[in-house]
Amino acid sequence: MLSAMHPSAGPLSRLRREHEELVLSLLRKHGPLSRGELGTRCGLSRTTLYDIVGDLIANGAVVAAVPLAEERRRGRPVEKLSLNPDAGQALGIDFARRAVHVAAVNVAHEIVGSASEQHAPDLSWEERVRLAERLVGTLTGGALRLGALDAVGVGVVGPIGAPGDRTAGGRRLDHLSELLRKSFGVPVLLDNNTRLAALAEATWGAAADDADVLYLRVSHGVGGGLVVGGSLHRGAFGLSGELGHVTAVPSGAPCECGGTGCLETVASVGAVLDAYRAAGGRADDLAAFTAALAAGDPAARAVLAVAGAHIGTVLAAVCNAIGPGVIVIGGELARTGEALTGPVEKALAAHIMPASRDRVVLRPAALGATGGALGAIALVLHESPLLSHYPAEADPEDDA
Amino acid sequence: MLSAMHPSAGPLSRLRREHEELVLSLLRKHGPLSRGELGTRCGLSRTTLYDIVGDLIANGAVVAAVPLAEERRRGRPVEKLSLNPDAGQALGIDFARRAVHVAAVNVAHEIVGSASEQHAPDLSWEERVRLAERLVGTLTGGALRLGALDAVGVGVVGPIGAPGDRTAGGRRLDHLSELLRKSFGVPVLLDNNTRLAALAEATWGAAADDADVLYLRVSHGVGGGLVVGGSLHRGAFGLSGELGHVTAVPSGAPCECGGTGCLETVASVGAVLDAYRAAGGRADDLAAFTAALAAGDPAARAVLAVAGAHIGTVLAAVCNAIGPGVIVIGGELARTGEALTGPVEKALAAHIMPASRDRVVLRPAALGATGGALGAIALVLHESPLLSHYPAEADPEDDA
Repeated sequence: MLSAMHPSAGPLSRLRREHEELVLSLLRKHGPLSRGELGTRCGLSRTTLYDIVGDLIANGAVVAAVPLAEERRRGRPVEKLSLNPDAGQALGIDFARRAVHVAAVNVAHEIVGSASEQHAPDLSWEERVRLAERLVGTLTGGALRLGALDAVGVGVVGPIGAPGDRTAGGRRLDHLSELLRKSFGVPVLLDNNTRLAALAEATWGAAADDADVLYLRVSHGVGGGLVVGGSLHRGAFGLSGELGHVTAVPSGAPCECGGTGCLETVASVGAVLDAYRAAGGRADDLAAFTAALAAGDPAARAVLAVAGAHIGTVLAAVCNAIGPGVIVIGGELARTGEALTGPVEKALAAHIMPASRDRVVLRPAALGATGGALGAIALVLHESPLLSHYPAEADPEDDA
Repeated sequence: MLSAMHPSAGPLSRLRREHEELVLSLLRKHGPLSRGELGTRCGLSRTTLYDIVGDLIANGAVVAAVPLAEERRRGRPVEKLSLNPDAGQALGIDFARRAVHVAAVNVAHEIVGSASEQHAPDLSWEERVRLAERLVGTLTGGALRLGALDAVGVGVVGPIGAPGDRTAGGRRLDHLSELLRKSFGVPVLLDNNTRLAALAEATWGAAADDADVLYLRVSHGVGGGLVVGGSLHRGAFGLSGELGHVTAVPSGAPCECGGTGCLETVASVGAVLDAYRAAGGRADDLAAFTAALAAGDPAARAVLAVAGAHIGTVLAAVCNAIGPGVIVIGGELARTGEALTGPVEKALAAHIMPASRDRVVLRPAALGATGGALGAIALVLHESPLLSHYPAEADPEDDA
């Protein structure tokens, strides 16, 4: 989307956020400053500055203290203002299919921690939000203060429509946004969690210097995200990157999207486990399958070869269309390593245009399971140049 | 690319072009103005303005005349300056496989005409450039003056590398650029002609108001172009939009790109004619095939149904990846109409994600055979917002 829920998102409150951000960025850059030094540098009126600083101290983002050296001097002591390293500025939460991942950055834009917990796939939204709150509570040993929080960035499974478009999973997302707003009391920005993982990989991860990136995540679901010409791409209806629903087997199995023979039906964790069991293998979950693979089971290898060939063929088709420089593969199944990526590369080489064959690079994802939560933080901070053309308008409907 | 060949592309000459463009745009907006009126509006010094105006009159872009009403008044008559409607500002030339298409706009940015001529596929570059010169000579009955020409935009077949990248057809393009620079004496901007046709359709044609457009051209070759998030997209290596080389038949016929079973091997004009003849039909060229189709030949219809099914399947895969709002189909084969687009739509609906099915719109191209040449003009004028993030640096190597 983004679906922004800002309780008071008028131009004045936006201006105030900009002034706050100016003061925070000066403290980030110069370290502790007195009110006088801050005034010289920020160009705000004395009244406005004192007002802003007062609020930043009240919500815990900034701390005021008299330095020891100052205390020993004669005359009136001068307080110095500095960033509170325990104040969170942005939270990222990834509501994956079977897990919640959280990450937070402080007002200095340092990642202060991340945490994850698996859960049953049918857990209610109320319980997932409570789980997220609990995980946030564990960050920096519970010392993290959320008073200075700008916003919460949230990744969810499935398509996310354009601002104001309530058809693509709209009601479910409205409910989640409302729960999160009640929990954290700040605006909520929502996007597809795989697209957020692509943003994170292209901002800090395996493709940090690349302007044209194709990201594929093979996990319980199969999805992707695109960085195109230096910008994260959402597509006309928020439906870009749906690589898991490209047809891989024209007369294949029905897919939960309503289609037939989608890549997800042959290359997800579930599909690989099913194929392995159909070939006589025994594995209840991916860990057991990975153990069998490590033990040299040829059936496990053969199953991954088939999945890898389908993945490589789909990637080649998409490469021919959009011409990326780098392909990043992440997700739980990608952690099987070369047994999957070898067949992927082989099929990719067979089907990509020969002119591109030796140019496009395939890399494993670098950020692991918290990629989606980190991408949600990038979305909130809006600091990545990849977001320069990303839709960022708040949806006024969401405030109703 | 763009490969710009500017004989004197330093900052001063660039500044001078900007001043000229300022004067031209004021005359475009306000109609005839005296030097004094121009001076008040443009903010240039009197010396600079008189210098610029002198050059614009000398190269034929601007004409100076004393209006009749002015002549009758007493005192010194005041000349008015106006745009010369016969002065060309930008030329677009599309060197297609078997035809040259040209189009020109005057200094008022009005399209003053377009012209096309078919030729044998093995015609030399020298002869193609002479053909282009001759076609340009026919525009506006030969009255078009080229003295005010800013640049020539050129579309060519095949991949175009990044600025400075000489591997993707580099030598061939250098030779062509040199020939054109000698002919027209101005900078040459080169790009893939199908990408330019996509730019033209998304600027003035079938998708003029859309930010996410997938363009497919089915002609003697099969190619495409993408507008992604409101920008024309070239891809990391200038290889975006190669939809003709997405695998359509995994164990199909060899393709001239070096691949196997590419869409181009089953959906180009040549492939359709071959399939029609293999089914017992008789047609030497597309015109004969189209006549057979119009006469109700079921074999002609069946052959297009197969090609359309392959096209729709490839379009669906690409749609799932990039999520366009509009698909535009152009090229000679597309002029067969519903006999092709019907099967395309059917396969598209079968393979696109159900969530996108009722949203993505398929439209026939609106600009016909001169789309590539019009796109080349858009490239030169750089007036389309679609080009706002398009690479536009000159390649200094090209000047050698």
